[in-house]
Amino acid sequence: MDFILGIDGGGTGCRAAVATRDGQVLARGGSGAANIRTDLTSARAHIVEAARRAFIEAGKDPELIKAAPAVLGLAGANVGTYRQQLRAILPFRESRVESDAEIALEGAIGAGDGAIAVLGTGSAYRVRRGGVSRPVGGWGFQVGDQASGARIGRDLLEQTLLACDGICEASPLTREIMAVFRDNPEDVVEFTVAAKPGDYGGFAPKVFDHAARGDAVARRIVDKAVADVEGALGALDLREGDALCLLGGLAGLYAPLLAPRYRALLREPKGDALIGAVRMAARVFGHDAEAGDG
Amino acid sequence: MDFILGIDGGGTGCRAAVATRDGQVLARGGSGAANIRTDLTSARAHIVEAARRAFIEAGKDPELIKAAPAVLGLAGANVGTYRQQLRAILPFRESRVESDAEIALEGAIGAGDGAIAVLGTGSAYRVRRGGVSRPVGGWGFQVGDQASGARIGRDLLEQTLLACDGICEASPLTREIMAVFRDNPEDVVEFTVAAKPGDYGGFAPKVFDHAARGDAVARRIVDKAVADVEGALGALDLREGDALCLLGGLAGLYAPLLAPRYRALLREPKGDALIGAVRMAARVFGHDAEAGDG
Repeated sequence: MDFILGIDGGGTGCRAAVATRDGQVLARGGSGAANIRTDLTSARAHIVEAARRAFIEAGKDPELIKAAPAVLGLAGANVGTYRQQLRAILPFRESRVESDAEIALEGAIGAGDGAIAVLGTGSAYRVRRGGVSRPVGGWGFQVGDQASGARIGRDLLEQTLLACDGICEASPLTREIMAVFRDNPEDVVEFTVAAKPGDYGGFAPKVFDHAARGDAVARRIVDKAVADVEGALGALDLREGDALCLLGGLAGLYAPLLAPRYRALLREPKGDALIGAVRMAARVFGHDAEAGDG
Repeated sequence: MDFILGIDGGGTGCRAAVATRDGQVLARGGSGAANIRTDLTSARAHIVEAARRAFIEAGKDPELIKAAPAVLGLAGANVGTYRQQLRAILPFRESRVESDAEIALEGAIGAGDGAIAVLGTGSAYRVRRGGVSRPVGGWGFQVGDQASGARIGRDLLEQTLLACDGICEASPLTREIMAVFRDNPEDVVEFTVAAKPGDYGGFAPKVFDHAARGDAVARRIVDKAVADVEGALGALDLREGDALCLLGGLAGLYAPLLAPRYRALLREPKGDALIGAVRMAARVFGHDAEAGDG
């Protein structure tokens, strides 16, 4: 065995990296969505395509993917039997299928103890101690994902309509949002009929911006969101010296707002999820293979 | 003109009542959905069918609907130009198209000053003073309908998952709910993927029941919901002597929990929305017609 594969797949696309067995990345390749929960066959095809493209990009024969062991981090791999189903049909020499959060954790903090908080359109946490990692949160927009961009945007529209009805105080931000919807609450409702989490999440940076400028409604929403993040961090049992990485589009907005005890743990992520998959492949397959080949 | 029509139409069905011009109901008729926002043509057909059935049930020639003036209360009539579009194609002698909330208000409190709070799967309020009525709330499950059964059910699942993650306290109720979902948070998430507001609302009576027995999580959810109801009632500018009617499936659960100043205004509803449409028709068309015929 000369090469290992790291693969990062999700609902919007699939990325692969081919690396030497000590984890030096040689080249990358990309393809379409790899959603194992909704379309396993197409997910497999895109995973293989991304891997072949990475080999071609590295100037290697793409048929060599069959000789390479792979670590795959895939959204939905933690649910049901999708992981086992996929493993059975992959063409790689060996396949280890992890959740997307697991390879993001590995990419961000490496192999040691620590945690990630993914704060983007959704929100999710993962903590590792003594080699064992566990997820916290990440249950989706409707009944989870507290402090996510989507939840913040939804809170904003709710507060805007309450202000419109005279039930809660209005603010410069709620007035600005009403103007976006032509001062017609029915237009807000029409928006919500088709809105996806990402559509709500589009309002989140504006809420942080107005909160920083003292807008009362924005501050209430952001204060609640920060409390929700700290509540989840509290459930991670972090200790002094642990690494904590904030990931996702809102990471930079939350970092300065956290309590000092959490700010003290913050680190820049070492790498992204794809790098995490590569590193895990080097850790899991690189040494074993060496021992086996020796 | 000998007869008047009252019509109550919505997404699940359409009811009509034929009455003498002083508002004495002679007979009723029903038909299918009358959703003017999604299918105006079919809504018109069901409205006409319900009216004809009411006349037949009363032993009258159904062709007489063309000589009868009608008040229609229809979900969605307060939005866009649906009201005007429908009015232009109705076969009745004259048609007055109101929102479903307006005829519910008329049915509950009659023609005077007062308000209704509709507390069921959704929530909405309507207040009338000096003959002018206005809506408050009712903006739907995603960004409105505070204190509705759907919102209470959604809150319960959210608190249950937070307890499952160790972020918030568990309670007998959250443990009972986790057992419903086979102690698997992923099963909760699967439920939310397809759940409609009514599906969430199914949990609401259980939350009130556990709150009454002291369950900490249930009490927090119900306390918040009661505060939301009182917040909306506060925006109605109710005065001593005003009539306040609680309608909807949760009315009886909320009534004893409201602050004394609101409990003092509570009245049993005089009649339902269909009766409201008939009464409004008698008020609007009965006297005018008499004067015109005389």
